[in-house]
Amino acid sequence: MPKLITTRTRIADLGKPRVIVIGGGFGGLEVVKHLKGASVQTVLFDKYNHHTFQPLLYQVATSGLETSAIVAPFRKLFAKRNDFYFRLGEVTKIRPEENFIETSIGEVKYDYLVIASGAVTNYYNMDEVEKNSSCMKTIVDATKIRNKIIRQLEYALLTDDTETMNSLMDFVVVGGGPTGVELCGALSELKRNVFPKDYKELDMREMDIHLVEASPRLLNGMSEQASKKAFEFLTEMGVKVHVNTAVKSYDGNEANLSTGEKLFSRTLIWAAGVKGNPINGVNPESISPKGNRVMVNEFNQVKGHQNIFAIGDVAVMEGDEKFPKGHPMMAPPAQQQGSLVAKNIKQLIAKKSIKPFRYFDKGSMATIGRNKAVVDMKGGIRFQGAFAWYVWMFVHLMSLVGFRNKVFTFLSWMWNYFSYDRSNRLIIGRNEDVSTLVEEYKSKENPL
Amino acid sequence: MPKLITTRTRIADLGKPRVIVIGGGFGGLEVVKHLKGASVQTVLFDKYNHHTFQPLLYQVATSGLETSAIVAPFRKLFAKRNDFYFRLGEVTKIRPEENFIETSIGEVKYDYLVIASGAVTNYYNMDEVEKNSSCMKTIVDATKIRNKIIRQLEYALLTDDTETMNSLMDFVVVGGGPTGVELCGALSELKRNVFPKDYKELDMREMDIHLVEASPRLLNGMSEQASKKAFEFLTEMGVKVHVNTAVKSYDGNEANLSTGEKLFSRTLIWAAGVKGNPINGVNPESISPKGNRVMVNEFNQVKGHQNIFAIGDVAVMEGDEKFPKGHPMMAPPAQQQGSLVAKNIKQLIAKKSIKPFRYFDKGSMATIGRNKAVVDMKGGIRFQGAFAWYVWMFVHLMSLVGFRNKVFTFLSWMWNYFSYDRSNRLIIGRNEDVSTLVEEYKSKENPL
Repeated sequence: MPKLITTRTRIADLGKPRVIVIGGGFGGLEVVKHLKGASVQTVLFDKYNHHTFQPLLYQVATSGLETSAIVAPFRKLFAKRNDFYFRLGEVTKIRPEENFIETSIGEVKYDYLVIASGAVTNYYNMDEVEKNSSCMKTIVDATKIRNKIIRQLEYALLTDDTETMNSLMDFVVVGGGPTGVELCGALSELKRNVFPKDYKELDMREMDIHLVEASPRLLNGMSEQASKKAFEFLTEMGVKVHVNTAVKSYDGNEANLSTGEKLFSRTLIWAAGVKGNPINGVNPESISPKGNRVMVNEFNQVKGHQNIFAIGDVAVMEGDEKFPKGHPMMAPPAQQQGSLVAKNIKQLIAKKSIKPFRYFDKGSMATIGRNKAVVDMKGGIRFQGAFAWYVWMFVHLMSLVGFRNKVFTFLSWMWNYFSYDRSNRLIIGRNEDVSTLVEEYKSKENPL
Repeated sequence: MPKLITTRTRIADLGKPRVIVIGGGFGGLEVVKHLKGASVQTVLFDKYNHHTFQPLLYQVATSGLETSAIVAPFRKLFAKRNDFYFRLGEVTKIRPEENFIETSIGEVKYDYLVIASGAVTNYYNMDEVEKNSSCMKTIVDATKIRNKIIRQLEYALLTDDTETMNSLMDFVVVGGGPTGVELCGALSELKRNVFPKDYKELDMREMDIHLVEASPRLLNGMSEQASKKAFEFLTEMGVKVHVNTAVKSYDGNEANLSTGEKLFSRTLIWAAGVKGNPINGVNPESISPKGNRVMVNEFNQVKGHQNIFAIGDVAVMEGDEKFPKGHPMMAPPAQQQGSLVAKNIKQLIAKKSIKPFRYFDKGSMATIGRNKAVVDMKGGIRFQGAFAWYVWMFVHLMSLVGFRNKVFTFLSWMWNYFSYDRSNRLIIGRNEDVSTLVEEYKSKENPL
């Protein structure tokens, strides 16, 4: 006979203010962490049951790391907290006037709401590109790219047609930010160290890697010196870098560039931009048309709502003179905002004054390959090469969420370093789409 | 302008006998290994680009190991071999009269063919069970089970109905062989060590684990002593073992047992049997109606074909008095047959005499949990408990394919041992099926 479960009632009736955090990315995690010990009920909603360390997705996509090394289950991260609740579900709408959110698993009331729903890939309304290209925002995306890269080489073995073979063996990456640069570097190491052993039947010199960047230089957010060096490194490694060049269209095979050039490739990875991923119900006037980010004041409060905050990629703060277009869509601003918002919520509950956000820019870095990275530190300290690469690895290891992930990623990197190998070159997942594609490529007579 | 790629022609025209191996499981791998240095062209066809170490799939399904630890890409395994070719594709038919196989990527001629296509789950024509239950033969299956187990607990938090909650928290495993026993042991360790920390809101005492076995005892292929001890271990660990009990039907929620009892669970894992997975085109008279395995002579040759061999799970050898029903569907017979078949093919090419197969039974083992395993060795040596567990781990580590997999699995096991944790409790994959299910479970008012 059905009866009410007492535990559920107990949780809903904590008698403390409820802080709901939407999204467990870098920002959301910091909010949860810094609400530890506060007299609140902290509830995290996320579509996934795990945090994803997005800066290393490119290593999953290029077989360097296994998926489990860069994700951490939320429940594990906060297992020791008695004031923390996780719910697997998508927040579909906010009703600010009633302090309610609507989610795929029901409606919930909040006292304080933190929107940390991050960013999604920005295709700038190019539907054809969106349909035919790959993006890299989630573990599933990265795994799909890994599957696709390897599958293309398997297909390249099957065709009798040189053009088809080349379009299968060539890769186009759009966007010369850290993601695009790191992806191209990793692809070039696969081409140099791994694929020639795996695909002796293919002439790997035929594998072209193109990096297409619309602005005049790579790593736009970094110093000229870093840009120049990244360009040099990539060129040395055989990557064809096209700056001042935009992709106009892509039908799954032919990419038309703004220069009039055409690139033929069955694989185009779109890393050319992101935009905010705000939740329905936020006043449309509070969403910046450029970047689709929620406009917030210096306390990360959404206009007109003292109890609704937006942080990280989804938020754009007005009034920081150094960052008139908002803070960079990277982990550090999200983390710093997250920890401050948690503290400010505690202040608000205690009816004390809250502090405005000041971004502390520690600098930025990108890796291109083995012994090749570029680092811009605060105060104009810049260096490139092997030492920069060690710094990059150290910082990323330390930032990885979870001690086990740090250890296993470190071991994987050591392994990759000494073996020159990438062990995760696996096609895992449903194969349903193979048969139709193969009809095009296969040599009916003899696929050997 | 399209032109023929010279590399492809070169490969197809090696001028050496071509040995095609269908399937890179334990048997197929041994064939490839032992053809090293032979004057043949070895071609492996597989649906996946990697070998799967099936004995540890249950650890992937229960969050103990990451997928990459138990798989190894074929091209990596044989990267140093110049006489080895891999093709990603499914073999759909054999035309023995012409020495051709038909595959999803085209037709190929063989001189020698080794069918090592393994086994598939046997539902004994119970379509309803097949439709509603989970099986565990591939990495994708194991990942789906992992996703499902964790998702069920997330759903259990949402319902107001005790019956629904219980059916989400309870798990039924059908089949008391090594897979079923090991799965139940691992589930019970999750229930004891991991889930109480993750799901403080659920009363984990409500999580029931049922193991249903049709025969009078568990681990039917092992000694009475091992069966008894496995039963004791599982019972101590809280698993409800039902022997002499068959599942008659399962509609996704209600399992009807042959004893008249009903078990209510949304998760039923079917590990009750496997059957051969022969390839179309083998003479139907050569396929045993019981077990669907290809009947072979003492040289693993398929009746009527000197150049077609079948090995491992897909083959049943007639004439071995000790194994009138065929050799056990486990790794050792497959591996031993694989290495012998490779040697015999070399003999046939050299026009020398070939040797018949003699199975060398080293014994068998199963693990139930931490410090709990059962081992039957050749010569009647039997032991159970902690030492058996160390032996089990050592043997499995040594059998894992690839040195990196051995190292990383060892480290994961050490980690799990000392932390009592299982870090891979991840839901990874498409979420499309969530929304409809949630409609049933969700509490519209407040999912907290």
